[in-house]
Amino acid sequence: MYRDGSLNKYLNDLAAKLPAPGGGSAAAMNAAMGAALISMVANFTIGKPKYSQFEIEVKDILEKSEKLRQEFLNLVDLDVKAYQSKNIRDALDVPFMLARLCFEGIKLCPPLIAKGNVNLISDVGVAAVFLESAFASARFNIDINLKSIDDKALAGSIRKELGRKAKTIKKIREQTEVKVGKIIRG
Amino acid sequence: MYRDGSLNKYLNDLAAKLPAPGGGSAAAMNAAMGAALISMVANFTIGKPKYSQFEIEVKDILEKSEKLRQEFLNLVDLDVKAYQSKNIRDALDVPFMLARLCFEGIKLCPPLIAKGNVNLISDVGVAAVFLESAFASARFNIDINLKSIDDKALAGSIRKELGRKAKTIKKIREQTEVKVGKIIRG
Repeated sequence: MYRDGSLNKYLNDLAAKLPAPGGGSAAAMNAAMGAALISMVANFTIGKPKYSQFEIEVKDILEKSEKLRQEFLNLVDLDVKAYQSKNIRDALDVPFMLARLCFEGIKLCPPLIAKGNVNLISDVGVAAVFLESAFASARFNIDINLKSIDDKALAGSIRKELGRKAKTIKKIREQTEVKVGKIIRG
Repeated sequence: MYRDGSLNKYLNDLAAKLPAPGGGSAAAMNAAMGAALISMVANFTIGKPKYSQFEIEVKDILEKSEKLRQEFLNLVDLDVKAYQSKNIRDALDVPFMLARLCFEGIKLCPPLIAKGNVNLISDVGVAAVFLESAFASARFNIDINLKSIDDKALAGSIRKELGRKAKTIKKIREQTEVKVGKIIRG
């Protein structure tokens, strides 16, 4: 399992002339780092008197980001397995799950700008950027597999959902970048 | 060194209440995955008769992406060390180096759309998305550290260079996404 192998080994296999891991697995790792950064900001907020009024909400964010982090890490290896299985539905389901979870993850960033430890505000910005980019990457892999799906109604509904989510995610990333930028350049 | 530790260990430390690794190191890992994906596409192109007319150019891309991959991987650990050193110039130099190398990396994507193995076109798209997001993430860390720099002329010139590069990188990402999207959506 790649999750238990080194960063260097993972990158070597990613670069190599091997069928997997590829962009789908790397996008899951990207998203896992985004979720981990959300957790870090929450961990540096909880217990600080200055942020005690947000304690319950930040603990809730941490619980969600930690759950997401494990799911993203699982997808790093699941994407490799799905590719090897040569089953079109597996190859579609894994990036579709990734895209949906990125959408859940990025929604944790805006409340954390207001309620998280301001010394780590740039990490909230990085998390939003990572989750948006992981979503965009997953979308490429979904689009490729949708071309091979016979069920045109299903393909259409997935495309519609993704298009809608893509717009929201882009907006959240942009707003997060602007807000974080103002605080750190301020 | 994190490069020799597992993905899971890296993510655990990223999420933990530890001063490092943080967003700067994770951005370097993100960029390393982007460079690795460029190498993968090149490796699946070289030696194929269909792409023989581009062989020299694609080999040149591979040489550059592999060099960048090693540099990015070094920055994963260097960012942690720079943070621990508490030296403002180290803390500034590492993300600035990362931003400049992301700029070099993303420039390899447009020629690879035209000259790389079309079966891996989505991975070129993912690479461009990763390198743009790593650049944007590095920029947050540069901006934070620029606030503490006494040399205002230096800070101004760095901000100017980054602003210019940010525009170019955004454009390359968008153009790559559009071109790759057209090819995979047919």
